[in-house]
Amino acid sequence: MLAAATSAPADATGNGAVAFLQACRAAGMDTCIANPGTTELAFVRAFDHVPGWRVVPALFEGVCTGAADGYGRMARRPALTLTHLGPGFANGIANLHNARRARSPIVNVIGDHTSAHLPFDAPLTSDIDSLARPVSAWVAHLDDAAHAARIGREAVQQALASGGQTASVVFRADAQAAAAPAVVPGAGVLAVPQRAGVAPAAVQEALRRLRQGRTLLLVGGDALGEQGLCAAQRIAVQTGAALYCETFPARIERGGGLPAPERFPYFPEPAFALVQGFDTVLVAGALEPVTYFGYAQFPSRIVEPHRLHMLAGACDAAGDALSALADALGCAAWVPAPMQAPRVLPDGAMDGAAAARAVAAWLPQDAIVSVEGGTMGYPFFTASASSARHTVMTNTGGAIGQGLPVAVGAALACPGRRVVCVQSDGSAQYTLQALWTMARERLPVTVVIAANQRYGVLQNELVRDGVKVIAGAAAALTSLADPSLDWVALARGYGVPGAAVRDGGALREALDASLAVAGPYLVEVLL
Amino acid sequence: MLAAATSAPADATGNGAVAFLQACRAAGMDTCIANPGTTELAFVRAFDHVPGWRVVPALFEGVCTGAADGYGRMARRPALTLTHLGPGFANGIANLHNARRARSPIVNVIGDHTSAHLPFDAPLTSDIDSLARPVSAWVAHLDDAAHAARIGREAVQQALASGGQTASVVFRADAQAAAAPAVVPGAGVLAVPQRAGVAPAAVQEALRRLRQGRTLLLVGGDALGEQGLCAAQRIAVQTGAALYCETFPARIERGGGLPAPERFPYFPEPAFALVQGFDTVLVAGALEPVTYFGYAQFPSRIVEPHRLHMLAGACDAAGDALSALADALGCAAWVPAPMQAPRVLPDGAMDGAAAARAVAAWLPQDAIVSVEGGTMGYPFFTASASSARHTVMTNTGGAIGQGLPVAVGAALACPGRRVVCVQSDGSAQYTLQALWTMARERLPVTVVIAANQRYGVLQNELVRDGVKVIAGAAAALTSLADPSLDWVALARGYGVPGAAVRDGGALREALDASLAVAGPYLVEVLL
Repeated sequence: MLAAATSAPADATGNGAVAFLQACRAAGMDTCIANPGTTELAFVRAFDHVPGWRVVPALFEGVCTGAADGYGRMARRPALTLTHLGPGFANGIANLHNARRARSPIVNVIGDHTSAHLPFDAPLTSDIDSLARPVSAWVAHLDDAAHAARIGREAVQQALASGGQTASVVFRADAQAAAAPAVVPGAGVLAVPQRAGVAPAAVQEALRRLRQGRTLLLVGGDALGEQGLCAAQRIAVQTGAALYCETFPARIERGGGLPAPERFPYFPEPAFALVQGFDTVLVAGALEPVTYFGYAQFPSRIVEPHRLHMLAGACDAAGDALSALADALGCAAWVPAPMQAPRVLPDGAMDGAAAARAVAAWLPQDAIVSVEGGTMGYPFFTASASSARHTVMTNTGGAIGQGLPVAVGAALACPGRRVVCVQSDGSAQYTLQALWTMARERLPVTVVIAANQRYGVLQNELVRDGVKVIAGAAAALTSLADPSLDWVALARGYGVPGAAVRDGGALREALDASLAVAGPYLVEVLL
Repeated sequence: MLAAATSAPADATGNGAVAFLQACRAAGMDTCIANPGTTELAFVRAFDHVPGWRVVPALFEGVCTGAADGYGRMARRPALTLTHLGPGFANGIANLHNARRARSPIVNVIGDHTSAHLPFDAPLTSDIDSLARPVSAWVAHLDDAAHAARIGREAVQQALASGGQTASVVFRADAQAAAAPAVVPGAGVLAVPQRAGVAPAAVQEALRRLRQGRTLLLVGGDALGEQGLCAAQRIAVQTGAALYCETFPARIERGGGLPAPERFPYFPEPAFALVQGFDTVLVAGALEPVTYFGYAQFPSRIVEPHRLHMLAGACDAAGDALSALADALGCAAWVPAPMQAPRVLPDGAMDGAAAARAVAAWLPQDAIVSVEGGTMGYPFFTASASSARHTVMTNTGGAIGQGLPVAVGAALACPGRRVVCVQSDGSAQYTLQALWTMARERLPVTVVIAANQRYGVLQNELVRDGVKVIAGAAAALTSLADPSLDWVALARGYGVPGAAVRDGGALREALDASLAVAGPYLVEVLL
């Protein structure tokens, strides 16, 4: 028997889990990525009683939460994750950390012991609250099936609030299985709340600054859609402002002649050097720029307060604000730039940058690109300015292991669009189980692994600190060689075909091959 | 540069990280399993300035913590883990949950941002405390290098307390790198504190119960070493008591003619049926038996209070208590049972139980066996009663993904002993990156995967609840087929050789082959 399941009707209709799923479905949800255990079996069975749900299995919880992140970024509505008590949920925390920074709407259901069992400190008893709160804007407890429908709807509402956030529901096994009234039909789909508008005074101050001196326009969030990018470009053309986007955008439209801002620099030296050239850094839709880590030689704030003007915050209607600003400046309408011919990759040996340019040149129309890691990620973004129109998602929170699951979620959210993962090898290891979900669901994902067999970012930091030869413990802990990872074998292990390539011709062939298979395909770029 | 590293001497000697490592080394530690990031680079470099540390890389933090668990169970002293802020640490929580239930001594170092950087909400800023507390008996903050040596020593002391527990240190990047006095030499190795003795009255009550009626003797913890098992067996022989061990022992000595208790049943039906036959359940070294999950048909407590006598708690000196009890009963000395001839496995097709018997029959002398999952795990344990002398470790906390990392830790703790993983496929997926660490460190581990392509325990629970045909969402979320996992390919991806087998002859050959290679070897048993 399930945990306390016999208190529910034998066919599992009309219990707390069913009511919860009905409420979420009515509110507009339809996708669940799950890795359940015994305390979630009543919930699992409830899916068969609520039409319209797609239930996607994952072998690891970080895949569930990362996929929900990718889904939320693309669909602008939450996916559901289902995980097993505190320890199972804990495996999903890293990608929820990233999702929080991406402002992705997500609803987590975390199973818990039957209420009567909690005092007995059985092996899986855990402090779920303490684990969930750091990555959840809202945590609810469902220990009474009568509240399941209400809490289900509220969870969706919470997930859509504040520009997108994580709502977690700790759902006790007995409440899942206990009888509950069916959801009253008629409750409508919940819409994304309108973003907060920007005060006219903030626009006026931006106008004053743009007219007064050299301006760096830093755009993020809502300003990275077509409207915001075009408005920003109009302003840049009119005023001579330099246009950058935030370093790690959750989602940015790109290619096809769209205005193509470069990313604000990651390392402090180029970031501080960049901003020195400007009287004002004008921010629309991004957070104030701070260094990624704390460094003794640099303050955390990259821009002195008097040189910073926040036109629109990260949750605000930054696209609208930029449009209003462009109109107030009397900017000309945006004219798409003529597309540059893609650079052709030579057939010979290549480095990460050359491989990234090849992927950018090859990118299919309307692709979604999940970028994780710098080896190919930075040069890809630069090169993709002249790609076909596409959407890019990056790692927003710095918890690595996000690229593959986000690709899963994007593919679930956007059937018909090719998903491409531009992925470093080290970070791919944290959630490589995502490959199996791609294969199981026949998701059209081209995974391109930059296989340089090292944690490149750490070796870069060591070199920047004056280390001449990376040896000793630093070598032991930043090298992924000896043995090298064989990504084609790993992919095969998950039922994903693939090829390893060393030169440009083979890379182009492998990328094309990925389009010819029905599901995912992995290309290992040996660097 | 490292995070705030320039406040430290250029050669990294004499900083907070060095002092911490010196103190831990002086206290008796020598092994670190690590997955660091930028905020831990000063700590990484410090290893090169403190002789005697073995630094072991892992591709995923769950491998670090699970390996520390296995190390702690075997070495009876803590290993160090090193992880990257809240999100990196979070990936290690599941196996720390298990470690807590195993009472393994562990010291975690969790890097954090430089102090001055914390207010700026940079991407990796996280509530490490909230994440660490549920799985840590003790959490300390190291934000001043002057305290590094003291806190390092205290962390070891805390890890060894209460029969073994987890001590977590949140070590800010600036405190790692800031100058600190070297540790004063002479501080000695910290010993494991003596376990609490058992009150004579508890022994007297046990005597009374044993003489009065039918007794089930349930042993765990400290009673699962040779002393405790032999004392328990003497009592059982003398009094007719039935001897069982706890369902999920952290570590039990077994084989070679040792008394070989069966595991207390996992599912409630056999557990309640078993205890009905006894007037007293006498517990030594284990927790009171409760059901694993809450079930509507069963109370959580398996034994009514009046029929329960706790001779020794899970942290107490249960072996001594059993010896005292055996002496008080006037039991005869323990005589090893004659070894049974191992059952020979037929060459043909096999199920999980037959494969498990084959592994038990093959087991090398003094092997350490990490058991996770039921398919082969339960029958292996039964069969291993007549194996060569060995040590078994099981999944103590129910967070799956523990078997492979625990094997890593056991191999690090006990060079020269063969380690065997008897591992279900579903649970192996959560931390399969452990295979790479086995290959990198050339650890002599034979991994035997029970590949039945399903979450068997969940399908068993569904069947027990009356489900006739597992279909719909339940099938989608409990089947690991379509595509099937190819474990030999996955192993090859990590540089681990292996073979897939379908029959007894091939299994025996593959097991033997594992002994002929210098490092790990994986055997996939296709069920």
